[in-house]
Amino acid sequence: MGGIAVYPGSFDPLTNGHLDIIKRALPLFEKVIIAVATNSRKASLFSSEERIGLMKEVFHGWEKIEIDTFEGLTVDYCRTRGSKVILRGLRAVTDFDYEYAISLMNKKLAPEIETYFLMADHANSFISSSIVKEVARHGKAVLDQVPDVVNLALLRKYQDS
Amino acid sequence: MGGIAVYPGSFDPLTNGHLDIIKRALPLFEKVIIAVATNSRKASLFSSEERIGLMKEVFHGWEKIEIDTFEGLTVDYCRTRGSKVILRGLRAVTDFDYEYAISLMNKKLAPEIETYFLMADHANSFISSSIVKEVARHGKAVLDQVPDVVNLALLRKYQDS
Amino acid sequence: MGGIAVYPGSFDPLTNGHLDIIKRALPLFEKVIIAVATNSRKASLFSSEERIGLMKEVFHGWEKIEIDTFEGLTVDYCRTRGSKVILRGLRAVTDFDYEYAISLMNKKLAPEIETYFLMADHANSFISSSIVKEVARHGKAVLDQVPDVVNLALLRKYQDS
Amino acid sequence: MGGIAVYPGSFDPLTNGHLDIIKRALPLFEKVIIAVATNSRKASLFSSEERIGLMKEVFHGWEKIEIDTFEGLTVDYCRTRGSKVILRGLRAVTDFDYEYAISLMNKKLAPEIETYFLMADHANSFISSSIVKEVARHGKAVLDQVPDVVNLALLRKYQDS
Amino acid sequence: MGGIAVYPGSFDPLTNGHLDIIKRALPLFEKVIIAVATNSRKASLFSSEERIGLMKEVFHGWEKIEIDTFEGLTVDYCRTRGSKVILRGLRAVTDFDYEYAISLMNKKLAPEIETYFLMADHANSFISSSIVKEVARHGKAVLDQVPDVVNLALLRKYQDS
Amino acid sequence: MGGIAVYPGSFDPLTNGHLDIIKRALPLFEKVIIAVATNSRKASLFSSEERIGLMKEVFHGWEKIEIDTFEGLTVDYCRTRGSKVILRGLRAVTDFDYEYAISLMNKKLAPEIETYFLMADHANSFISSSIVKEVARHGKAVLDQVPDVVNLALLRKYQDS
Repeated sequence: MGGIAVYPGSFDPLTNGHLDIIKRALPLFEKVIIAVATNSRKASLFSSEERIGLMKEVFHGWEKIEIDTFEGLTVDYCRTRGSKVILRGLRAVTDFDYEYAISLMNKKLAPEIETYFLMADHANSFISSSIVKEVARHGKAVLDQVPDVVNLALLRKYQDS
Repeated sequence: MGGIAVYPGSFDPLTNGHLDIIKRALPLFEKVIIAVATNSRKASLFSSEERIGLMKEVFHGWEKIEIDTFEGLTVDYCRTRGSKVILRGLRAVTDFDYEYAISLMNKKLAPEIETYFLMADHANSFISSSIVKEVARHGKAVLDQVPDVVNLALLRKYQDS
Repeated sequence: MGGIAVYPGSFDPLTNGHLDIIKRALPLFEKVIIAVATNSRKASLFSSEERIGLMKEVFHGWEKIEIDTFEGLTVDYCRTRGSKVILRGLRAVTDFDYEYAISLMNKKLAPEIETYFLMADHANSFISSSIVKEVARHGKAVLDQVPDVVNLALLRKYQDS
Repeated sequence: MGGIAVYPGSFDPLTNGHLDIIKRALPLFEKVIIAVATNSRKASLFSSEERIGLMKEVFHGWEKIEIDTFEGLTVDYCRTRGSKVILRGLRAVTDFDYEYAISLMNKKLAPEIETYFLMADHANSFISSSIVKEVARHGKAVLDQVPDVVNLALLRKYQDS
Repeated sequence: MGGIAVYPGSFDPLTNGHLDIIKRALPLFEKVIIAVATNSRKASLFSSEERIGLMKEVFHGWEKIEIDTFEGLTVDYCRTRGSKVILRGLRAVTDFDYEYAISLMNKKLAPEIETYFLMADHANSFISSSIVKEVARHGKAVLDQVPDVVNLALLRKYQDS
Repeated sequence: MGGIAVYPGSFDPLTNGHLDIIKRALPLFEKVIIAVATNSRKASLFSSEERIGLMKEVFHGWEKIEIDTFEGLTVDYCRTRGSKVILRGLRAVTDFDYEYAISLMNKKLAPEIETYFLMADHANSFISSSIVKEVARHGKAVLDQVPDVVNLALLRKYQDS
């Protein structure tokens, strides 16, 4: 099949929830671009370089995956990349209204681009980057919630601080 | 692009909300099959023949659309048609939990099939087959909420009754 | 102040939740019409005559209240009565999507009519006609959840059955 | 520890979601009574005798479990059994408002009885008796969603019909 | 009709969503006061003077509209202005719980004041001041989401920064 | 009955909503530990010493109550105290997803510990520490929403500032 999907997010850090969405979307698309939003006004635990480094390790050898960063509006990034599809995961009902508003605004700014949603797999629906960080901050491993390299990076990050 | 998407539903009757989802999904797929669930245990206003007849009029000449009926589980139908994608629209937060449970069950029954969701366009998010029927039952036209042939069929249906 | 508000519903039976909405709306309007929807296709515990009889007792002597029945669409009824305001109570988040869809459809059918919502008072937010009936069916008084005459009518109704 | 918890429901049929709640509640209580509500006005797939039979098989040898039926209000049943605790599972946000209203009404009817909620385990949060029945009706096994004996009973039930 | 409604908010900046609520409420009231909450502890894009200046342009010549600022509790402001009605818009289910809590607290502080809610028109339900700012920050016009003067002010604001 | 429940929170300050949950949980447990989370990275109105001081006044003479502070993960604190039960109140549907995610994570970190939820009593469901602080900041008494000593402390706190 053809077509490029853009999967935008902060990925601070990548969780198994993100991983699940990406794996499931791969068969439908020629390429999935994981697009790290670099927002200088939002504090992050990992720098965008670190986030990309971690994802490059995790997705090493995955042929249809590309990892990139972008600044600005997601639809502008999609246009520069020739993508007509934004990919998003939905975990819980509280995500809904926010994702709805964003997808309607994107539709207005770029009518030719559609946002497709996948529901998080039940085992991953409760995983969020912020809960994972909260747990790791107290020195706990979060092994089955993030890829191994992310777990190590989290423990190292909080050890240093 | 390739791939077949199955868009299952009752379509009793087809609304502009359904139409919007179908139009927006078309560019991503080689074919979209509108699959009318024929559930003998659920009362419907239009028979499945009438529903299919109306949709054949509406989608006359649309090359990538196929209209079909099915009984049984959606994932079984997808497998017989060689489709790996179920397409669904999300209109409101109250749809969420139901659609989530169904998509997780489908994932369990057929791990190779994914359900992709599109959010209803804001102009269509409040349209539902049941509200349309309630209004038409009182003799009101619902012109901008259903295709014209559906509007006529609705008025005729309630005139007869 | 002027203006007529229509407060539509089944009122099967009137609860203190309804009563609270009506009392709070009265100061803003010249008249509040409690409009009992008589839907022959929906089973009710009390006949529309009984429901009106109970409300006439409860609102005896209240000058700005009128009790009426209507069939068909609420907006059509409002127009025949010269009302530009539909009044509705919101009790809980699950009411929201339904009330939203109905109010948008009404706006479409009759752009000159607005639906105004009041949030249920916290002491009444959990009262619903259906829970009240469920409790009364088992012979329990529901004194502080419905007006006294309604409580008596409920007990009598279920004693007879 | 002491105290009796009543876990009321239809259990038509028992799912692994129910089983998970029961297992997790057991350590806190001296006894958990699984109380099958027999509501003659609500259609069920399994008769209350069948439902109890299935649960007796599943819970055979579990010392702190009792299986019983009741008619009428849950709080009345709790009082006859000397229980001060109603146990309920919460699976999704759509359960919330209903469970809230019921628990407030129960508190009003019986202030000495509390309703304690457990959140469904993530692997079970999407399992509901009605989805399980829908799948089994089409001849599919639902092995990891219900206990084995329930799976067999479901398949037999739908084979006969 | 008589009576003064107070429509409180940050209006940072005024959107077409606000405008829609105001237009629809006007027929019911003698006067609608748009009351800009000036909260020195909350960062805003436009100063309260700028926000008021923009609204004065937008509502120039509208006889029943007054634009004002207030500090402190909304109910206290209503009392000083002789208003018995707070007006609020509801856009989405996520607004509900917050608006409910605030309206109950206001009812407690000032039982004589009611909060009336209007549901956002479907074309405006996805517009929020924060999404509008996010888009404008990237240099995009948001013409059909805010009045023209607000669009210009937004573009100028972000050009300068 | 036996067993220790841990009721964790910020309690900045204690409200009647918290008090209601604690009172209702007391009969089920041997001891309820009110565990003040001291998070140095989160700004609070009252210091943890002040919060504990206020609660010691409120719960003076209550034999089954203990007041304590903890840093780090709630499940770790429970383990050091030999508690198998975390107690939480649910006020509104917006609490649900967050509480769900936290309780699933806790279950993962400590499978032997269960989180039990009580629904807030209707009179208290709209009370939150943050709304109480907002009202008190404007010099209003919030007498029936917090214990008397908390009301005094709030008024004093905002007088000084």
